[in-house]
Amino acid sequence: MLKMHDIITKKQDGRELDEEEIAFFVKGVTDGSIPDYQISALLMAIWFRGMTEEETITLTEYLADSGETNELPSVKGKKVDKHSTGGVGDKVSLIVGPMVAAANKGIYVPKMAGRGLGFTGGTLDKLESCAGVNTEISATEFEKIVADLGFCIAGQSKRLAPADAVLSALRDVTCTHNSIPLIAASVMSKKLASGSECIVLDVKCGSGGFCKTVRDATELARLMVRIGARENRKTIAIITDMSSPLGSAVGNSVELIEAIRVLEGKGDEQLTELCITVAANMLYIANAGNYEECVSLVEETLYDGSALDKLAELVERLGGDKRYIYDTNLFEESNVTAMLVADKSGYITKIDAMEVGKAASVLGAGRDVMGEQIDNTAGIILNKRIGDRIEEGEALATLQAKNLERAQLGMEYLFKAVTIGDTKPEERKIIIKTIGA
Amino acid sequence: MLKMHDIITKKQDGRELDEEEIAFFVKGVTDGSIPDYQISALLMAIWFRGMTEEETITLTEYLADSGETNELPSVKGKKVDKHSTGGVGDKVSLIVGPMVAAANKGIYVPKMAGRGLGFTGGTLDKLESCAGVNTEISATEFEKIVADLGFCIAGQSKRLAPADAVLSALRDVTCTHNSIPLIAASVMSKKLASGSECIVLDVKCGSGGFCKTVRDATELARLMVRIGARENRKTIAIITDMSSPLGSAVGNSVELIEAIRVLEGKGDEQLTELCITVAANMLYIANAGNYEECVSLVEETLYDGSALDKLAELVERLGGDKRYIYDTNLFEESNVTAMLVADKSGYITKIDAMEVGKAASVLGAGRDVMGEQIDNTAGIILNKRIGDRIEEGEALATLQAKNLERAQLGMEYLFKAVTIGDTKPEERKIIIKTIGA
Repeated sequence: MLKMHDIITKKQDGRELDEEEIAFFVKGVTDGSIPDYQISALLMAIWFRGMTEEETITLTEYLADSGETNELPSVKGKKVDKHSTGGVGDKVSLIVGPMVAAANKGIYVPKMAGRGLGFTGGTLDKLESCAGVNTEISATEFEKIVADLGFCIAGQSKRLAPADAVLSALRDVTCTHNSIPLIAASVMSKKLASGSECIVLDVKCGSGGFCKTVRDATELARLMVRIGARENRKTIAIITDMSSPLGSAVGNSVELIEAIRVLEGKGDEQLTELCITVAANMLYIANAGNYEECVSLVEETLYDGSALDKLAELVERLGGDKRYIYDTNLFEESNVTAMLVADKSGYITKIDAMEVGKAASVLGAGRDVMGEQIDNTAGIILNKRIGDRIEEGEALATLQAKNLERAQLGMEYLFKAVTIGDTKPEERKIIIKTIGA
Repeated sequence: MLKMHDIITKKQDGRELDEEEIAFFVKGVTDGSIPDYQISALLMAIWFRGMTEEETITLTEYLADSGETNELPSVKGKKVDKHSTGGVGDKVSLIVGPMVAAANKGIYVPKMAGRGLGFTGGTLDKLESCAGVNTEISATEFEKIVADLGFCIAGQSKRLAPADAVLSALRDVTCTHNSIPLIAASVMSKKLASGSECIVLDVKCGSGGFCKTVRDATELARLMVRIGARENRKTIAIITDMSSPLGSAVGNSVELIEAIRVLEGKGDEQLTELCITVAANMLYIANAGNYEECVSLVEETLYDGSALDKLAELVERLGGDKRYIYDTNLFEESNVTAMLVADKSGYITKIDAMEVGKAASVLGAGRDVMGEQIDNTAGIILNKRIGDRIEEGEALATLQAKNLERAQLGMEYLFKAVTIGDTKPEERKIIIKTIGA
């Protein structure tokens, strides 16, 4: 008879767990028969010892099979899923879903998203900053919206990969979130359970992501692409820069507003480039044409306003007021607005993503524990990007918060996040490389 | 403000925790504000990364201070404590307490002991195998018995080092028990809280102990002696062999009976040698004379029967029937007695302590989880020791159990524990080395 004790010891010794042991572990996680303290002991042993590719694939499969799968039988067409490993200012899902749907090639985007925790935000929280929107909808409603609009963004069903939900929650609170095999198994198990044939992964690299180096990000990307291949899912991973925040807005309503700007064709240049790349890859992997054709298709949805209309339709279907999408002045304003000004002249050489994320979190845009209320209006708008010239006293960023105390605290964090130097730094590319398919 | 998250991350990175962090951790363990899964994550990170001597000393101090201390104000004399890191067949506490008390040098042995868990037995369970004995007595009663008899063996007060009790229980179930700094902090925190000025440690080395090698045992022993010195406790550590079981009996009543044999001066030679060494060191460290004088003093207590009388007095004070001590035929017999015979002729080259411990446990002498009922009569009596000649068909050991099934299972385990070879092995010394004071 298997015992958790022997499984933990085996991993402490750096040995490979076999299928029977992984099955036993996932079953015990799912049915609650293995206590949290033994799960977290094993997670920490894996954090130190790693897992082989075979182990990771086996874990992924058992996590994916720990609950229901989401086949969406009424959706008649290829389904393509998109996932980001998470970063600061990442509003890409809010943009690429509408773009792919608006491209109107019979390709569907059933996007199950999460809530923010720690210093990285949640797509659902951002979407719900529009008055009336509720992303906690039934599986039937989700399927109906996907079929009707070509895409939907909503809360992950609790019946999909429940064992992964337990592990992810424990990884967050035991500092074992940043283990490459555990990230790969978590991401891919959810993607397998969600039932899409094609998967595009945005693997973030830099201080605001799980992977701090290109080497780690590449290892994670390759591993996830190989898992996808083993499970007969076409998978592409795009490694993208997360050393500084994505775009200029970090928060909830400020990020939804920035997403709207991109959909209007008036967005931040690098953010727009990334969204076009991700959306084009989603179409390409689902056989909508060659890559250049796919790029043209998605660019067109920005110029003709069709992607923006798709977002407005989604907002309406989720109970929201779609006028917000066409008039962002309607969004609620924060109580306090503060300005961070440069204390010297020079070039912006660094805007540390993690530190900006922490600043947004203390302003009220994030959660320390699941379930905590967040402040929709709290956030940061950066006026400058890396490489920009700034003069002493010039506004560097605008901060929004519920009260002065939070604004003050956010200011202190943000001040530490930005470095001003004497020489203009080299330009950083947003797309580092693409792996797979 | 300190967060458990940052403390875990720091240890994952292999950095030293400072006093403030350790204090925060122990406080949270004591008041229950840190959840088990975060405690076990940190324990596993410590298992991998270790702790510096400073960290270990700080942890020891905070664990010791997490509850009450046991000063025994009415005991007018030097108090000496004895602790074994735990092994198979270890009945030494039952013997050395009476010996030191019988030596009558005004030196007191307030011994708080534990119950058996896994394959190593508990002194309390062994003592309670004598009809009527109850070791769960009040602190007042404990102090009174120590003052009257010169020693007492009873259950550890839950008010002493409660944070260590939490950590020890979690270490058992998360496979982090065998970390040298964690063992040292656990043992020494209990010893500090128990209030004795002098400490003799029996550090077991071999398959049946936490430390499998002399190198590990030496590291642990030196660390504990240095902690003792820092806390102004005179501390001696004796490293002793635990590759094979101590003495010939493993179980509960069989071990108490073997302890009685030693106190009668008719015990196993190596076990007697170890008890004399430990007891003599206890007297020596408490300034009862030079080491040779102390050896003579304790030997005398075996020859004149005074140590046996001390044990009988303790049994009576704990509510037991002291006639058992003078007539071991009174002990309850097991339902089933089975004989393991040699399957070939040769020399006994190995009796693996851990495997014998597991055999005793399946016979019914041990517990898998705390609180489980144990079978007092279950156990093993080995007829042969390492180096003995044995002929095919000759009895190797007697097994006692409640039923045939358990006897059968115990037989299978015990069979694997014993190796018979062609050449007589070199004799193994019971005392490997002494460190400290």
